[in-house]
Amino acid sequence: MKDSLFIGIDIGGTKTAVAIGDADGQVIVETRFATEGELDPLVFIDRIVDEAAALLSPIPGALAGVGIACVGPLSRDQGMILGPPNLPQWQAVPLVERVGRGLAAPVWLDNDANLAALGEHRFGAGQGVSDLVYFTVSTGIGGGVIVNGKLIHGVGDGAGEVGHQTVVPGGPLCGCGNYGCLEAVASGTGIARRAAEMVAADPSAAAGLLARVNGDVTQLTASHVAHAAQAGDPLGGRIWGEAMYYLGLGVGNVISILAPQRVVLGGGMIAAGDLLFEPVRATVKRHVRMVPTDPIAIVPAALGQDSALRGALALAVDNAAVRA
Amino acid sequence: MKDSLFIGIDIGGTKTAVAIGDADGQVIVETRFATEGELDPLVFIDRIVDEAAALLSPIPGALAGVGIACVGPLSRDQGMILGPPNLPQWQAVPLVERVGRGLAAPVWLDNDANLAALGEHRFGAGQGVSDLVYFTVSTGIGGGVIVNGKLIHGVGDGAGEVGHQTVVPGGPLCGCGNYGCLEAVASGTGIARRAAEMVAADPSAAAGLLARVNGDVTQLTASHVAHAAQAGDPLGGRIWGEAMYYLGLGVGNVISILAPQRVVLGGGMIAAGDLLFEPVRATVKRHVRMVPTDPIAIVPAALGQDSALRGALALAVDNAAVRA
Repeated sequence: MKDSLFIGIDIGGTKTAVAIGDADGQVIVETRFATEGELDPLVFIDRIVDEAAALLSPIPGALAGVGIACVGPLSRDQGMILGPPNLPQWQAVPLVERVGRGLAAPVWLDNDANLAALGEHRFGAGQGVSDLVYFTVSTGIGGGVIVNGKLIHGVGDGAGEVGHQTVVPGGPLCGCGNYGCLEAVASGTGIARRAAEMVAADPSAAAGLLARVNGDVTQLTASHVAHAAQAGDPLGGRIWGEAMYYLGLGVGNVISILAPQRVVLGGGMIAAGDLLFEPVRATVKRHVRMVPTDPIAIVPAALGQDSALRGALALAVDNAAVRA
Repeated sequence: MKDSLFIGIDIGGTKTAVAIGDADGQVIVETRFATEGELDPLVFIDRIVDEAAALLSPIPGALAGVGIACVGPLSRDQGMILGPPNLPQWQAVPLVERVGRGLAAPVWLDNDANLAALGEHRFGAGQGVSDLVYFTVSTGIGGGVIVNGKLIHGVGDGAGEVGHQTVVPGGPLCGCGNYGCLEAVASGTGIARRAAEMVAADPSAAAGLLARVNGDVTQLTASHVAHAAQAGDPLGGRIWGEAMYYLGLGVGNVISILAPQRVVLGGGMIAAGDLLFEPVRATVKRHVRMVPTDPIAIVPAALGQDSALRGALALAVDNAAVRA
């Protein structure tokens, strides 16, 4: 296996990354470019294949497999992308077949949150434990679950939808169609929606928030709310605190059900650092009483934007090894 | 292994069961008697040992192992019972050591909800699937999680505390110290508490409920509420429906996180039948949007009061096989 090479690909809504890796899943070289969602998907996939082939050609060794992380929904079995909200043109796109033909190698596919969990488990903040749950906290909230060292997929590959647990019965409408999902109240989108609501309800209390967007409430993001909270703005603090309380309940629920050794939080919102982790940890400690929480570390992802890319490489290495 | 015999023991708050089984975990003979919680625990354990020895003696074969299900909290590692609410005298009781000495065989211990999950998986409503979640819905709500055919225990053996997910933020106080746990709003105890509250709030609306307990609100149980709901009593229907909605949310959250092939509900409250299962299934269908729920069966436990006893036998068979 030592002369085998692997390709990892991570296709996100805005960026796509390609890496060449060795049999240990270590990256030899990688590149990153904009996902051109407005292109014909097959044309963009051929672009990915060309980028991968160009990266691969100077490196001695034989290509043994390709792992792809992509935004979902998708079908692992059929190797198809099924119209993700972030890539609306990608309807029933035969990604695996197209990449496999282009690179003349076996190809495996999984969703980006699962592969971020795998990447963090193998190479990042989840190393050394057998059981972990990964949350990606960003515009949405996704996740992946590793039990006994292995990703679990569940019925219809539905496992890991930690952002779609109901944490506020009768709460705000979520993009999924349910009400009160964790994603609806604690994602970047959910926080921005709540901020707009609160500003509309009492503009006089919202001066601190509005000053950050020159008075244009439509520009308010979770990041503005976080910065306002950090700066001591009362309304910002209230909105942020409420979201972090729900995020803590969601993390806590997963702990009550699975008692994993570690919970890894990734995604854009973890840039808030202690402002996010402290209330989440405190909420878990206060609300989870039947599982000992002190030994369960709740930690930031360690691989930044590469979590899913590294997971895609690991997927290729693991599957090629099984196949050999 | 065909001549090996196994003992399964299930120590509950009110009843204890002992079974002799074969190497397939099938019961050859069993007995059941009251748990005498007021006795010195070691005296009662010796009584269990005597019952088991008496059952065993006429059966040809050699005792290969003993599995014990007990109400928790307990320590599997230390083989100790740690003061369960239902057995308050059992403080740091060395159950495994005492039974092992009494029966001269290896002994393995786990909590009753985990072993009920194992029993249903191996011999009951969970046969044939690799992943299932078991809920016991009774005076409390407990559970067990099986992934890839194996019980998961998690940190501090805390996995499976499905009844202590928070489903109503800021909701009623739970016995565990948290507020708004599933157990606090959907267990028999939770339903009875809610009924008493509702009756106190508006006694004039409560005639239908109060008639079932000769006007004595302190006698109201979840069973009275279920029967009132069944009979069309509006207040009974409202209280029951609310509890089943929360139970459905709790089952749904587990499905969003794990997407198991099957969810098995056991415990005394499943005697309510369709009155329980129909609203739970409908709530899951309505609130779980990111996991395909049609293939996920939500079914009653099939082994009645024997779920944990059969699981205790399976525990003994499995561990003796590993040891051999």
